Amino acid sequence: MRISIHYAIVEQFEELLGREYVSNDFDTCQEYGHDETENLSFPPSLLLKPRTSEEIAEILKIANEHRIPVTAIGGQTGLSGGALCVRQGIGLSMERFNQIIEIDQNNLQVTVEPGVITQVLRDAVSQVGLFYPPDPSSQGSCFIGGNIAENAGGARALKYGVTRDYVLNLEVVLPNGEIMWTGANTLKNSTGYNLTHLMVGSEGTLGIVTKIVLKLLPQNKHNILILVPFFDATEACQAVAKIFQAGIVPSALEFMEREAIDWTLKYVDGISIEIKDEVQAHLLIEVDGNYPDMLFSEIEKIAAVVEQFSIDEILFADTEDQKNALWKLRRAVNEAVKANSTYKEEDTVVPRYELPKLLSGIKTIGERYNFKTVCYGHAGDGNLHINIIKGELSEHEWKYEIPKAIREIFELTVSLKGTLSGEHGIGYVQKSYMDIAFSRNHLLLMKSIKNVFDPNGILNPGKIFPDGLK
Amino acid sequence: MRISIHYAIVEQFEELLGREYVSNDFDTCQEYGHDETENLSFPPSLLLKPRTSEEIAEILKIANEHRIPVTAIGGQTGLSGGALCVRQGIGLSMERFNQIIEIDQNNLQVTVEPGVITQVLRDAVSQVGLFYPPDPSSQGSCFIGGNIAENAGGARALKYGVTRDYVLNLEVVLPNGEIMWTGANTLKNSTGYNLTHLMVGSEGTLGIVTKIVLKLLPQNKHNILILVPFFDATEACQAVAKIFQAGIVPSALEFMEREAIDWTLKYVDGISIEIKDEVQAHLLIEVDGNYPDMLFSEIEKIAAVVEQFSIDEILFADTEDQKNALWKLRRAVNEAVKANSTYKEEDTVVPRYELPKLLSGIKTIGERYNFKTVCYGHAGDGNLHINIIKGELSEHEWKYEIPKAIREIFELTVSLKGTLSGEHGIGYVQKSYMDIAFSRNHLLLMKSIKNVFDPNGILNPGKIFPDGLK
Repeated sequence: MRISIHYAIVEQFEELLGREYVSNDFDTCQEYGHDETENLSFPPSLLLKPRTSEEIAEILKIANEHRIPVTAIGGQTGLSGGALCVRQGIGLSMERFNQIIEIDQNNLQVTVEPGVITQVLRDAVSQVGLFYPPDPSSQGSCFIGGNIAENAGGARALKYGVTRDYVLNLEVVLPNGEIMWTGANTLKNSTGYNLTHLMVGSEGTLGIVTKIVLKLLPQNKHNILILVPFFDATEACQAVAKIFQAGIVPSALEFMEREAIDWTLKYVDGISIEIKDEVQAHLLIEVDGNYPDMLFSEIEKIAAVVEQFSIDEILFADTEDQKNALWKLRRAVNEAVKANSTYKEEDTVVPRYELPKLLSGIKTIGERYNFKTVCYGHAGDGNLHINIIKGELSEHEWKYEIPKAIREIFELTVSLKGTLSGEHGIGYVQKSYMDIAFSRNHLLLMKSIKNVFDPNGILNPGKIFPDGLK
Repeated sequence: MRISIHYAIVEQFEELLGREYVSNDFDTCQEYGHDETENLSFPPSLLLKPRTSEEIAEILKIANEHRIPVTAIGGQTGLSGGALCVRQGIGLSMERFNQIIEIDQNNLQVTVEPGVITQVLRDAVSQVGLFYPPDPSSQGSCFIGGNIAENAGGARALKYGVTRDYVLNLEVVLPNGEIMWTGANTLKNSTGYNLTHLMVGSEGTLGIVTKIVLKLLPQNKHNILILVPFFDATEACQAVAKIFQAGIVPSALEFMEREAIDWTLKYVDGISIEIKDEVQAHLLIEVDGNYPDMLFSEIEKIAAVVEQFSIDEILFADTEDQKNALWKLRRAVNEAVKANSTYKEEDTVVPRYELPKLLSGIKTIGERYNFKTVCYGHAGDGNLHINIIKGELSEHEWKYEIPKAIREIFELTVSLKGTLSGEHGIGYVQKSYMDIAFSRNHLLLMKSIKNVFDPNGILNPGKIFPDGLK
C-alpha cells in the first residue's frame, strides 16, 4: 500500500525547495524507485530534489519531527538496493548536487558535490594531469556520493585502493539538521574518532553527505593491458596470488569465467575475440606507471608467471582502441548477464589466495541446488562477483531454495576469512545474511552507533541490519 | 594522592594471571607511568601483564564491575600521553603480546600481537621479501598496538599511507568482556559499519586490541636518498608541493629546520655534514622502486624542481651507510631537542601547499610570545612537528602563556584546513584544544560513540575529550 505524506508537510517542502523540486506523482516516484539490483521496485512516497546542505538540513528536521523515512538516491546504479525506499517516505534525489567545487592542483585534492558522476569527476581531474583512481564499472552513470555510501571499489583497487582510501573530509547533514565537516583536508589525521571513515560505507544510514574532499594522485602516463586465456578456471585463480608473490602489483587483475565473456561478446557490439572451446576463464591484467621500459619488464614477469599454468596465447592490447574494447567487454559483463536471464548477484570477497577454493565451492553448491553461476570480478583483491542464474529454476525454488544456497556461499566465504560484500554494500538484499559475518552483539554494537546519529531511525530504514534485530 | 585497588580485587587478578604478572609496588608503577611526552608521570595504581585475550576479557569484566580505569600501555614512546594512567587504576601492559602469529606469504598479510615492536615486525616480513611501510621514528621501540591506537604515520606515509591504511582486521576486547573481530581479512570490505577503522586511532578508549591483521606489499629493491640544503626555510616548504605537482610521489620528503640538524649533529655520534652558515633548512628526499633507471630519472626531475629555489649543493647518499646515517639523523631530532631543553611538541598537519604559511605563522606567534621553535617533520604530507623550546621562559610563562600560544598555532592550523594531530594522537596533552577543530556537538557525537563501547567510561579515561564536556 502506498503511504502518503500529509499535504501540510508536502507544502512545507514546496515552500522550501520550490514546487518543481517536490513530486509525489506516481510515474516520477516509480522512476526513482529502482536501482540496478535485480528487478526490485520500491518507490518513495515523495521525491525531493534539494540543492543545498541547508535545504537538506531543513528537510531532515521536518522528517525527524514526523518520523518520515528519508533515503538518499544517487545514480541508481546500486547493486545491493541501498538507495531503494523500502519503507517509502522521502526519496532524496542528490542529482542537483552536481558541481565540482574546486580542483586544488596545489594540494592534489578535489572538492566535489555528491551528485557528480564518477566518470565526469575522473575526466575533469585528468584534464589537469591528476588521477582519481576508483573506477567502479558503473562509473559512467553512478554518483560519487553513492560511491562513498557503498565504499565502491573498481578494477584499480588492488593497486590504488577503494573509495575509502581517497576520502579526506566530508560535509554531512545529520537527522537533527546539524551540518558538520567530519574531519580535515589532510592526508594524515589522528584527531579524535575518525567519523569520516565511519561515514564511508554507511549507506546513507548515518547522515547525508553533501560535500566531499578527495585525495588525488599525479596521472600515470602509460599502461599495458593483456588478456590471458586459461584452460582451467581454478588455475586462473591460482595465478592471481602468484603474480603478487612475484613482487608485482598490477593496476588491474580481473577474472572472467568463460560464460561471462561469451555472453558479453554477444551483448556488446563491435568487439570480436577468438576464444578456443577449451578456454574456461580469462585474466585481464594491466600494469601502469610513467616508464614504458619498467612496464614491459613487469609484463614480462607476469607472462612468466601465467605461463607456468595451462594457457592459450596471451593477447596484448596494442592500441588505445583495443584497450578500450577489452575494458568495455569487462565492464559490460553485469549488463550482459542481466540481459540474458533473471539473476542474483553476490559480491563475495576473500583473501586472494583463497579464490580457487571459493570458486570451486560455489560450483559445488550450484550443482547441489541445481543452478548455474557466472563468476567474474576483481580477482586481484579477492573480490568475486557471483551471478546466480535463474535459468530453468521454478519460482518456488528461486524464492525459497536459492536463499539457502546463498547462505551456504556466504558461510563458505566467511570460513575463508572473507566477508559478504567487497564493494556493493549490504543494503536491502544482503541484510538477512549479516548474522553469518557478525555475532548478534556485534550487530547490536553497529545498531547502537546508528542510534547515536539517527535516534529516530529515519535515515534509510530497512537496510544493513537484519529484520527483527534486538 | 595514590588511589589503591582493594586487595580482594588484586587477589582476583593474581589468581587470573599469576602473581608475577600483577604488581602494585611503587617502582614498577612509576616505571610504567611515563611515555615520551614531555616529562609527564602518571603511574597506574596496579600494573597487570596479561598474556591472552581471554585474560583481558576477565580483567575488563572485573574493572567494569568496579568502575576501575584501565589504560593499555605499549612501548611507552607516545608523544601525546595516550598511555599515561591519568586517572590511575589499572595499567595494562601489552608487552607479553609479543608474537608474530603468521606471515601469510600467499595473501601478503601478517597476523601479529599488539606488543610486537614495529621494527621487529618490519624486519620479519622483510626477511621473506615483504614490506610493511609505516615507519614511525620510534619504530625501534614502539609497539605495533600503539601504532594502531594513535594511527601512527612515519616518513613513508606520503607514498604508502599511515597505519590505518594497512589494518585489515582487529581482534578487540570490549569493556563487557566480549572478544570480537572487527572485520574480515580482506582488502575490500563494504559489509556494515567499519568498526576496524573506528578502532584505529581511538587511543585505547573503545576497546583493547589483542590481534592485528595487516596488509603487506612486495618489498621494493632500490631507493635513492638526497639531502637538499635551502637558504630559505619558506622556499623549502614551497618546494614540497612543487615536487608533487611535477608528477612525482617520493617515498619520503622530510623537512628539517637548521636548528633541528645542528642540535642533532651534536647529539648523535659518528655523523658529520658540512652545512654553510646561510642554510636555513633541509629537505631529505627519497624515491623507491624496483628499477634503478626509473629512480634516477625521478631524482633528476626532483633536482630540477629544487634547483628553481635558492639551494646549496645537493648531497647524494651513495652508500647504505650514508643512507642510514641520514635517517638516523632525521629520526634523532626529537631526542636531540629533548636533550637540549624542556619543550612541548605539537603535531600539526595541513594540506601540504599551506606549509609555508603555517611555518611563517608559527614564527610570528613565537616572536609575539617570545619563544623559539624547532620545526621538522613529514612535509610531504603537510605534517609539521613543532618543538616549542622553553629556553629562558619563566615557569609561569611556560605554564600559562604557552598554552595560549599553542591555541593560536592550532587556530592557524585549522584555518588552513588542517588539524591538531597528524600522527601522534590527542591523548592527554592536546585534549583541551579539541574545541578548535570540532564543534561541541561534534565532540558530543564522538563521546556518544565512546559510550556505546564503554558505557562506564573505564577505558583510558581523561583522554581525547576536553574536561567537562557535556
